[in-house]
Parts: sequence; C-alpha cells; structure tokens
Amino acid sequence: MADLDINGERLLASLQELGRIGALEGGGVCRLALTDEDKAGRDWVVTQMKTLGMNVSVDGIGNVVGVYGGREDGPPVMAGSHIDTVRTGGLYDGNYGVLAGLEMVRALKDAGIRTRKPLAVAFFTNEEGSRFAPDMMGSLVFQGDLPLAAALETKGIDGTTVRENLERIGYLGSAPAGAMKVDSYVELHIEQGPVLDIEKATIGAVEGVQGISWTEFKISGVSNHAGTTPMRLRHDAGHVAARIACFARELARELGGDQVATVGSMTVFPNLVNVIPNRVVFTVDLRNTDEEVLSQAEQRLWAFADEAAAAEGVQISRRSLARFEPVAFHPELVNLVEQTARGMGYSVRRLPSGAGHDAQILARNCPAAMIFVPSVGGLSHNVREHTEAGDLVAGARVLLRVLMHLANQEPIR
Amino acid sequence: MADLDINGERLLASLQELGRIGALEGGGVCRLALTDEDKAGRDWVVTQMKTLGMNVSVDGIGNVVGVYGGREDGPPVMAGSHIDTVRTGGLYDGNYGVLAGLEMVRALKDAGIRTRKPLAVAFFTNEEGSRFAPDMMGSLVFQGDLPLAAALETKGIDGTTVRENLERIGYLGSAPAGAMKVDSYVELHIEQGPVLDIEKATIGAVEGVQGISWTEFKISGVSNHAGTTPMRLRHDAGHVAARIACFARELARELGGDQVATVGSMTVFPNLVNVIPNRVVFTVDLRNTDEEVLSQAEQRLWAFADEAAAAEGVQISRRSLARFEPVAFHPELVNLVEQTARGMGYSVRRLPSGAGHDAQILARNCPAAMIFVPSVGGLSHNVREHTEAGDLVAGARVLLRVLMHLANQEPIR
Repeated sequence: MADLDINGERLLASLQELGRIGALEGGGVCRLALTDEDKAGRDWVVTQMKTLGMNVSVDGIGNVVGVYGGREDGPPVMAGSHIDTVRTGGLYDGNYGVLAGLEMVRALKDAGIRTRKPLAVAFFTNEEGSRFAPDMMGSLVFQGDLPLAAALETKGIDGTTVRENLERIGYLGSAPAGAMKVDSYVELHIEQGPVLDIEKATIGAVEGVQGISWTEFKISGVSNHAGTTPMRLRHDAGHVAARIACFARELARELGGDQVATVGSMTVFPNLVNVIPNRVVFTVDLRNTDEEVLSQAEQRLWAFADEAAAAEGVQISRRSLARFEPVAFHPELVNLVEQTARGMGYSVRRLPSGAGHDAQILARNCPAAMIFVPSVGGLSHNVREHTEAGDLVAGARVLLRVLMHLANQEPIR
Repeated sequence: MADLDINGERLLASLQELGRIGALEGGGVCRLALTDEDKAGRDWVVTQMKTLGMNVSVDGIGNVVGVYGGREDGPPVMAGSHIDTVRTGGLYDGNYGVLAGLEMVRALKDAGIRTRKPLAVAFFTNEEGSRFAPDMMGSLVFQGDLPLAAALETKGIDGTTVRENLERIGYLGSAPAGAMKVDSYVELHIEQGPVLDIEKATIGAVEGVQGISWTEFKISGVSNHAGTTPMRLRHDAGHVAARIACFARELARELGGDQVATVGSMTVFPNLVNVIPNRVVFTVDLRNTDEEVLSQAEQRLWAFADEAAAAEGVQISRRSLARFEPVAFHPELVNLVEQTARGMGYSVRRLPSGAGHDAQILARNCPAAMIFVPSVGGLSHNVREHTEAGDLVAGARVLLRVLMHLANQEPIR
C-alpha cells in the first residue's frame, strides 16, 4: 500500500483533455448541463470508466456512477462531483473531483489492488444550475430529495425540458434514481474562495457548507429637495439602507467565526444628486456554518432594520429570497481528511465551504466530506480560474489515501 | 399710507390667469424658457406693466424690467423673480414674486401714490435652467457676471440657441444688458421647502442662499463570492460607500445649524445579491449658508472617505460636480423684512434658502433679500405645488410694506 500512488502527470493530462471539450476561445470552458458539449464530456468520462473496467450505470436524471468492484459487495465508497460548467467556467470546478476519482481507480488497477468495499466515481447532473434550476439537481434526485418527475419537467433558460435534453443526448438512464446506497462520499474540489491561497495551505478539510439567508429589503421614504429639507424633517430611504449595510458588516465582525454578511445589490430611486431618495431596494446575504448563529444574525439584522426605519420615519418591508440551513460534514470523516493530509506532510486548514456542492446533498444519507485545494486569488466561475499543478496532485493523493482508508476499514459510523 | 394695501383677490386672480398660459392637463404649468408658452406669458405680463403705465425695457438676454416712476430719479427699488417654469411646474414658483410686484404697483396707482424712488418689477430670463444651462442665466447677465455673447450662443436641450429663441419670440431686446443700477432688490417667493409649513410660520425672512458642494465619489474594490470570501479579506466598494453615506448624515448633525448632507444617487456594480460589489459611484450633496463651515464639511467628508477606503483596501476618487459659495443677504434688509412682517402681526421665521434664486445674483451689487411664504408639504417643481391663498396675500402685503420703506427712506447702505 505504501507504494500505491496516483500519477500526477496523467491526472493533469486528463484535466486538460476534458477541458478541450467545450473550450472557449482565449481560455475557459462552457459545458452547460445537458448540451451537446456536456454530452461530449460525459461520453469521454464514461469511456474512461469503461476502459478501467468500471460498471457504469446511468439513472433517470442522468447521474452517472462507475463502480470499481471491491473484495466484498455492499454500498460503495464514493468519490464524485460534476462535469457541467457555468457559461464561462474553468477547467477544474467539478471536473477535478471526478477525474481525480478516475485517476485513483487507474492507480489501483495498475497496482492490481482491489479494496475491501467497492469504490465508485460519480458525476451528478446539473450541479451548476446555470441552465436549469435548481442547482445540484442530480444529487437532489439521487438522494431522493427532489422528485424525478418534477426534475424532468423543469424547463431551462432556452425553454426546453430536462427530459427532452436527456433523451436527446442519450442520458435518460434506466437505473432507478434515488435507490443507490452509498457507504461514504468524499468530494475533492477547488476551494472557489481565497482562504487556502492566502494562508498558503495546500489542503482544506471542509467542515461543512454554510447556511445561506438572502433577504431583500424595500424601503419607502419621502423624496424631497436636498437643499431645502432640514435634516430633522427627512425620511431618507437611502440613509436607512446605508445604516443597515453598515450594521450588516458590524454584525459579521461581532458574531465572528464563519459569519459573513454582504450587501451585494442596492438600487436607489430616483437616484438624483439633489433629491432625497424615496425608495431603495437592496439585499443582505448572510451565511454561517452554524444554524443557530445564522438565525441569530437574521433576527438581529431584521430588528435593526425595523429600528432604523422607525427612527427615520420610513416604511420597510422584507422578503426572503433564499434560505438554506448549514450542512455539517461528518466530524470523523473531516478529521480523517485532516489527519491523512497532515500525515502526508501537507499543510492543512479546516474551513467551511461558502459555495454549494453535491456533497452537502449526499451528507443527508451517508458520512460525507470534502477536500479543498487552493484557487489562485479565489477566482471562481471565471475563465481565469486556476489551481497550481502541485496542489491538484496533492489533493488527488489525499483523496486516494482517504478513500483507501474508508474502503478498507470498518464503517466510520 | 396706512390705508395703502394690495387687493388680495386681484392678486390671486392674476396668478390663476398667468397659470392658464402653458397649463398642463390635470394641473400645473409648463412654460420652459423662451418657448411659445414663455412668450405668451411674457406678453401677458408686459401688457399688465404697460396698462399700469410702467416704462418697460427688454435687455439683450430678454430680461424685462417695468419701472414705475418715483418722485425722484435714480436707481429703482426692485421687486422681481421669473416667469419661466420647469417642465412640470406649479402656479407660484417665480410668477408669484412678479405678480405681487405688479399688484403693488396697481395698489399705488389706485391710491395715486408715487414713492420717492422709482419702483421696478422685473422678470429674469431662464431662471429655472430646465431648457438652457446655466440656471439664473438672465440675472447673471443682468449683473454682468455672465457675458451676453456666451449666454446667447448657449444651446438648449433641443439644440437651438438662446439667441435664436429670443429672436423668434421677439425678446432679443435693445436695452444694454448689465448696465442697470438697482437701489435694492426684494424677491418674494414660495419657500420650496417644508420649514414654514411645518413650523406654521407665515413669513420667512430669508437670511441667505446656501452654498452648494456636490461631490461624486467612485470606489473600486474587488468583486468576489459573498459566501467564500472571509470578511477580513474583502475589498468591498459597497461597504465603503455605505460608511461614507452614514458619515455624511453624522457630519450634518454634528455641524448643526443649516448644514445639510444628502446621498441622493448611488449605483452599485455588478449589483448581484451574492457578489461583493467591486464598484460604486455615488454623490454627496453638502449645503450650508456659512462658507467656512461648508468648506470644513467638505474637508471632513473627503478625509473620512479616504480613511474609509484605505481601511477597506479599495481605491477612491472624487470630482466636484458643482460648487457655489453661500450668499448672505443684506442683514439690515433681512431685519427690515422680519420687523415689517412682525409689525403686521405675522408669524415670522428667519431661514436660509436651500434653492437658488435670482436674488442671490442681484445681491452681488445691491442690498438684496427674499421673503418666503409656506409651500404646503414643501412640494416644489411639482404640479402639486401649493401655497394657501391667505399666505400668498400675506407675502404680497409684506412685500408692499418693505418696498414702501425702501423707496421712501434713505438708502439702507
């Protein structure tokens, strides 16, 4: 076992090869879910799986699972991610986790090794959600949390349905969706944020996925002349919006930990230099890995907003644009990732994921975790997305070791 | 003299009559400068002046001055304002000061009274600036502060010049622009703000016109994922803008007095709920009657903006969109307005003007002041602009008394 290792050159070459399918001029990749480019990418990966002797199944939503048999039967230990991209994606988002899984199987096959439990490599349909909503559609159906029929009837940005596209590209599979038991799931992924890059850590042991709360506020005040209206007589919608925006930052600092708060959008009416704004619409994006703290952040934000509006004599209303509870990955599995990476001499940082991943869906039914490698500058969903070759190889090596452990030991739960 | 008074009914009727020229369906008036509607309004006022036996002159920029001779020759005591309107104006803005002046002359004529000094009633071209920039064009030329030739070549929003339009409507006059000496100038006007209305004062003794400082700020930060970017690693252009907006309010409160501060416009890029803003463009409108305090407000705002930008690690730039020094009206003349109105039993409030007026231009060369009457709800440049009949009559009565004093006494300076 000590000699078992992945072939870094081969992994990097396979990432380049898949990246040529749907390549954009000037760099980057566009393989929107269930397009002809996605089909070409899928076909290429499936060919790889079959060449490795894996048993490939496609379910009713087009999720593809390749199983490399173990010495015993039973639910497989799974590596997976996705191979669809956003419209201006990079080479690694998703693809990396899938191809590192295949490289792991390739290494095992070359060494003539079979693990105790079966190993699986999966890619899930429409993780990105750029063409069909919701994102993580394939894993949701895989996990039984989104009815297959509803998913199939989903219309995309071009008006065609998921079903039509699956049929067209030949991935409306016969394997029953939502029926596969999984022993444990590990998703290797680029970070899509700057933490590992800035802190010069090679491996991220991902503790969970942040919960998300998006609130849209609408404030209605009174427009009036910026010169003739004394300060004490103002009902300035813009002022209240600015106070709430400042409070959101303060709240994040005060709550500390993983709490983040972002005022990403703000639109001011009538938006004239000499007119007091009578209407502002803006959003606050709150995220935390701790549901209790996230709820507390919401309550405090909303209370402050109400107070600030009352103090200025303006009307305020709010609506939730999105709300997802945080997902905590399996603590022992997170520890396993951390200890394995440290044992291999890599610098490791525990961190939450700020973005959504298939792993958070899988985590509802089996021990799941993620391994992150650095994204240079934190760039993501960007044709300039980049991860250094050494880090890509390091992550795949950690994935191999973690899966070897999982597939050869007793279940961790 | 005790019996000399204006005829309130007649004044109100004349306001209605002028308001029918360029009347908008559903209420309000549109007589943009030098349009056919403006010509019709001018013709109507000039006819009134001639009927009253006034000596009417039109200068090279179309300013019209009607002089009602005194017992002595010399520079006239002048009442004036403008009769052009914004696109959706009311009946009173500008027109009120001109027609109250004519009603004053009418009362004198009816009573067979001549003042010691001549009295003049003037209306200045293009005070509003809605069709040609700058606003207060006529009074600027009248005062010699804007060259006539430059003003005449000004192109309006429809591409035609001031000269073409003056020729077309017959108001390219022969009186030398910038050559008339004025003894003193009093402009009666609706407040265009809410102070008198809210404080239930009938007469405003206007101490001056606020200085104006408009600054546009551009902040450049770094766009990043709202979930994956820790708070400490952010360069959030929106956050800095919100801090500066909050500071502007704080600054106005701290400086007190007449200081006002308004963030009227703010545009955020890319303006997405889950993306940290990388660019924000916004304006801060600062006004004060005290140039020293206004300059101090600017310095403190700019210094805070620089500090806030540095603290967040974003770039900030600023440019001045407008800068006018405050104008202080003649203290003795302001006192005369206040004491006259109090002596007549009216409630009086001293206040600054937040809007620009011809009086601030005239003030550069002669004692000048303004008399305000309440605007209901502070509405201005709005077809719903309204002042109660009783207040309109009160203001005209105060104007009459103040001008009688000025025209019968020694010069106040």
